[in-house]
Amino acid sequence: MNSTFSTRRTVRKYEGRDIESILLDRILTAGTRASTTGNMQVYSIIVTRDAAMKERLAPAHFSQPMVTEAPVVLTFCADFNRFNKWCRQREASPGYDNFLSFMTAAIDALLVAQTVCNAAEEEGLGICYLGTTTYNADKIIEVLDLPSGVVPVTTVTMGWPAEIPEQVDRLPLDGVVHRERYRDYTPAMIDDLYREKEARKDNLGFISENNKKTLAQVFTDVRYRKEDNEYFSGVLLDVLRKQGFIS
Amino acid sequence: MNSTFSTRRTVRKYEGRDIESILLDRILTAGTRASTTGNMQVYSIIVTRDAAMKERLAPAHFSQPMVTEAPVVLTFCADFNRFNKWCRQREASPGYDNFLSFMTAAIDALLVAQTVCNAAEEEGLGICYLGTTTYNADKIIEVLDLPSGVVPVTTVTMGWPAEIPEQVDRLPLDGVVHRERYRDYTPAMIDDLYREKEARKDNLGFISENNKKTLAQVFTDVRYRKEDNEYFSGVLLDVLRKQGFIS
Repeated sequence: MNSTFSTRRTVRKYEGRDIESILLDRILTAGTRASTTGNMQVYSIIVTRDAAMKERLAPAHFSQPMVTEAPVVLTFCADFNRFNKWCRQREASPGYDNFLSFMTAAIDALLVAQTVCNAAEEEGLGICYLGTTTYNADKIIEVLDLPSGVVPVTTVTMGWPAEIPEQVDRLPLDGVVHRERYRDYTPAMIDDLYREKEARKDNLGFISENNKKTLAQVFTDVRYRKEDNEYFSGVLLDVLRKQGFIS
Repeated sequence: MNSTFSTRRTVRKYEGRDIESILLDRILTAGTRASTTGNMQVYSIIVTRDAAMKERLAPAHFSQPMVTEAPVVLTFCADFNRFNKWCRQREASPGYDNFLSFMTAAIDALLVAQTVCNAAEEEGLGICYLGTTTYNADKIIEVLDLPSGVVPVTTVTMGWPAEIPEQVDRLPLDGVVHRERYRDYTPAMIDDLYREKEARKDNLGFISENNKKTLAQVFTDVRYRKEDNEYFSGVLLDVLRKQGFIS
């Protein structure tokens, strides 16, 4: 493997210089060659370069600085609007106002997003995914004028790296891969898999900073809390209703 | 860009020879470097190599021949089971039994899947995505013994190409990319975007084979029908309930 897959890291700080349009379009075109269900291409990519638009998007991403600092912000959307319009214009009745179709379109959008990121990194660019997209899809819809049939599923900030962060830890491969059948995790397996992560200095720091007893509590009590997850689940389901994917 | 992003095609016919374990593990390891929400790695990959297991999986994929003919079948799953177990073992209360958490885990799984595919293609392997995974997630859960907290979101067949198919058509880049704001499609834009696709010989063939008037009708009346989408939406929502992601 020649590419950057194995050495990659997420980049959150970017140089001031822009990404040339010709380069960006080459990267986006690479993305469009990703697999898509039945070649329907039920996704759209919104390119944000304008500073004022980045300012408007930022609150939806809890004002993480990458949104306004990156030269390019890409919002990847599940999009049946274009396909539906084509169907109606061709005497065909689209039946894509349902949850399965949302998942189909979300999968399309995510495969494109990841190919765009892989292609960008091969060009020396750095990227960061913003998981906040599914939290505040309603606000993003408003800022980007997304019509019915369109739901943002992820956002990527992209620019020339102004930092080369340490590669973060990952679980051992056998922690995420199962051979033939899912073999459920015993307590001893869990201890083994998470031992290295739990021993890391940075993670030990997060425990003491947050006055917690375990790293897992940093996740459940600080970073990804039940009450937030439940609140934003409601928001996202409302968005799916409003955009016509569930009734 | 040196890689195969722009020249890739989906491969559905494979040579008889196997994929070496060392190569497959290198490809899967590349996949694990993909971005993951909060470094939680809330996904699992089930590797199917055993012929009997492929036979059992095949009906869930409407017996498409790739499932039994490919040396390797990979099922990518949204997986909060491992993370939940870790939390409970560390005096932390996981709050991931909701729809937002399912989407988080599904996104993780899909970014890994696409990196695995890109890495495999760079090694000369061919891949095909099976969209049938979201249709028959219930059957796949049964065959692969997936516990609560785990939902299959996509499947990839992989092998050494025994064919080099034509590259399929794609919409022009401006058909899927929006600059700054979503600019909704006018009837004239739809005509322009779909003109090339509709003029292709293969697509004209599908219209006459199916006794339809337009290519769009081949999609709505034959390939992706409203009644099927609605039926499988129900199945998938039931799966999310059963696996603990919606109540």
